[in-house]
Amino acid sequence: MLNIRKLSIDSEGFKPELEKLLAWETVSNESVNSVVKDVIHNVRTRGDEALLEYTAKFDRLSLEKGSDLEVPKAELTAALNRIPQDQKDGLELAAQRVKDYHENQIMKSWSYREADGTMLGQQVTALDSVGLYVPGGKAAYPSSVIMNAVPAKVAGVKDLIMVVPTPDGEVNDMVLAAAAICGVDRVFKLGGAQAVAALAYGTETVPCVDKIVGPGNIYVATAKREVFGAVGIDMIAGPSEILVYCDGQTDPDWIAVDLFSQAEHDEDAQSILVTQDAEFAEKVYESMNKLISEMPRQAIITKALEDRGAIIVVENEDQAIDLINYIAPEHLELSIEDPEALLPKIKHAGAIFMGRYTAEALGDYCAGPNHVLPTSRTARFSSPLGVYDFQKRSSLIMCSAEGANLLGQVAGVLADGEGLQAHAASARYRVKK
Amino acid sequence: MLNIRKLSIDSEGFKPELEKLLAWETVSNESVNSVVKDVIHNVRTRGDEALLEYTAKFDRLSLEKGSDLEVPKAELTAALNRIPQDQKDGLELAAQRVKDYHENQIMKSWSYREADGTMLGQQVTALDSVGLYVPGGKAAYPSSVIMNAVPAKVAGVKDLIMVVPTPDGEVNDMVLAAAAICGVDRVFKLGGAQAVAALAYGTETVPCVDKIVGPGNIYVATAKREVFGAVGIDMIAGPSEILVYCDGQTDPDWIAVDLFSQAEHDEDAQSILVTQDAEFAEKVYESMNKLISEMPRQAIITKALEDRGAIIVVENEDQAIDLINYIAPEHLELSIEDPEALLPKIKHAGAIFMGRYTAEALGDYCAGPNHVLPTSRTARFSSPLGVYDFQKRSSLIMCSAEGANLLGQVAGVLADGEGLQAHAASARYRVKK
Repeated sequence: MLNIRKLSIDSEGFKPELEKLLAWETVSNESVNSVVKDVIHNVRTRGDEALLEYTAKFDRLSLEKGSDLEVPKAELTAALNRIPQDQKDGLELAAQRVKDYHENQIMKSWSYREADGTMLGQQVTALDSVGLYVPGGKAAYPSSVIMNAVPAKVAGVKDLIMVVPTPDGEVNDMVLAAAAICGVDRVFKLGGAQAVAALAYGTETVPCVDKIVGPGNIYVATAKREVFGAVGIDMIAGPSEILVYCDGQTDPDWIAVDLFSQAEHDEDAQSILVTQDAEFAEKVYESMNKLISEMPRQAIITKALEDRGAIIVVENEDQAIDLINYIAPEHLELSIEDPEALLPKIKHAGAIFMGRYTAEALGDYCAGPNHVLPTSRTARFSSPLGVYDFQKRSSLIMCSAEGANLLGQVAGVLADGEGLQAHAASARYRVKK
Repeated sequence: MLNIRKLSIDSEGFKPELEKLLAWETVSNESVNSVVKDVIHNVRTRGDEALLEYTAKFDRLSLEKGSDLEVPKAELTAALNRIPQDQKDGLELAAQRVKDYHENQIMKSWSYREADGTMLGQQVTALDSVGLYVPGGKAAYPSSVIMNAVPAKVAGVKDLIMVVPTPDGEVNDMVLAAAAICGVDRVFKLGGAQAVAALAYGTETVPCVDKIVGPGNIYVATAKREVFGAVGIDMIAGPSEILVYCDGQTDPDWIAVDLFSQAEHDEDAQSILVTQDAEFAEKVYESMNKLISEMPRQAIITKALEDRGAIIVVENEDQAIDLINYIAPEHLELSIEDPEALLPKIKHAGAIFMGRYTAEALGDYCAGPNHVLPTSRTARFSSPLGVYDFQKRSSLIMCSAEGANLLGQVAGVLADGEGLQAHAASARYRVKK
């Protein structure tokens, strides 16, 4: 029998128990930090030579020269032609749907003119170049290529550079195929902190980029944190999580497997069921015990559920909503009769899967929205990866003589108040004498 | 005579000279890091008690109990009534113009329905609570209160908590007045890393928030970096900079003072003039030498200009544009005849000041756009502070039975390809049997 935490929101000690359940802090590891700093320094100073050394050492892949690091475009196309037809179709449909959805996110420039002729606005432009980190080896996820590459291309990024480690020379055909479908511009066989360093600072072979996105292990995450500022980075993700809120009317087997699907990511993943139907909670628990043996990744699922999972019984919908907004889950499944009615009350969640038919897994692959989402309660202040992460804005100000006359006087007063007299002078030179 | 670097883009060694000029790395300081970690740990574990100790120690302000840290609302109103009428009018006009401009940035929810009834979309919500750090003492800037508070309130943030140190108990009336005008909800006399820690984790008196914004010294910046993840943060800014591009037809005195106004911020600030008119470059240099003695902050201006300033002569407009886009300046002044014609070619800049009448200082105070801008070439990948920094998005997915049938099959194939069989199972439960 699975040993999953069962909590009741009205029981004493619920709040501290919940806090403990949700607690997640990435403890910065001094030894990892020091290795990463070393790698970055080496790549900055020795370029390709350092990349070749690290790739030989960490990926057991000996290459002769820098240019050997690049995967020729023809290999991407070859991989696309080599994978089974259903995978090819699946990747293409997924990429198309993700593209269709993300096109709604494109930000546009705007401006307006005031009565005195002064123009104000904002000009939106795409990033020039982006680096996409893709983990290699056993955890190679083509869906991750799609979710990172498509929004960048929709935004208009011209140079999309992918790095993917090929441990022992092993490449993943689905990953290369996904890169081909998404229009990735160049691919390098590189991983770890050295790949991040190369993208941030450039080497003879690898061009430097303006922003680095994509998931990776602790070395990759630490390297991204380290190069932040020189380049932009996306979020540093914590373990994946789901909160399923169910009214008790969905097939308990469906809910059980939904909870499994999140738990199978890794042993730190978190699956939480919230329901006001205590009997249903038991039924889901029974389903889990019945179905767990069918899951190839049952060891990981069991560990994740027992360490970090929970079944929480609430008294009513309001309690459920408060709990959801407090937890601010990465994935929220509203497996209820009328999810649209509840939506305005949901303030914090990465992605909201509404209705009994919307398994979270559909969103991971092909529904359209992004699967890169804020974890560990960060949905309180951050958003899914999107086109907006590959665009940026410049403010526009064009004062008429009349406008400068008015604004110059006001700016003069305020600048004097702040003791910044050159500001005041600069503003007042435009005031009519 | 001011000893300012004069560069010609066609001269040998220009590129490395430019690199050196632009180089800026915030070196993380081990001793600062360790002090900050200590402060955060203390505030997290000892709450108000630690805040009172640090405030007594660093701000030489002895308070009896936690609640003494709060500035009553009546004091904000009193400050507003106490400042000179022209300052009050100036702050009110500035706040109103900043509000008008930022309302254009409000993001809205959207959704669409597919032929099979599946709904996809994105729900936009405001952050619940935001902490605003305002430096105290001599560098107390009411304009900074406006630029941070207004977009948060336009976004719909309910709890806007301001912290401002009051060294030796000294409060700045203009800062409190600005808080009153902008509708800041609560104000605490707190500064340094302890203020950041209190906002991130909460104490008996200070509520914890979801995001912390606002400028501060190295301790504040380090503390923000440290609490990032637990809460959101804005950018960590480098020294301020301006690039003025002039066609040689603007009054050289105006340009000289524009360059001064940026340089007076601090000794690390950077002012660069770019022009294709070598004679005009000399005229601006003469104006600078003529006007420098009129500037109360001439010592800072001189140091900044001599250490980090430059006058760069280019051959033609294309060279100027390439240079601008490479530098990606925080502030770009296009002091030319037809700045609108040039605009589409400007890819990277925080704010663009167009035409001869648009002094950068107008944007610092009251034009409308935000004065919190990406520095140190980060305009390549980031944007001015805006309403969008106080809103976030949740993806929406609601599959019809039909939609789940199609997507379930595709997700099943891709999940199997990634070795995530519980994902595949969860998707396939929704496929029609």
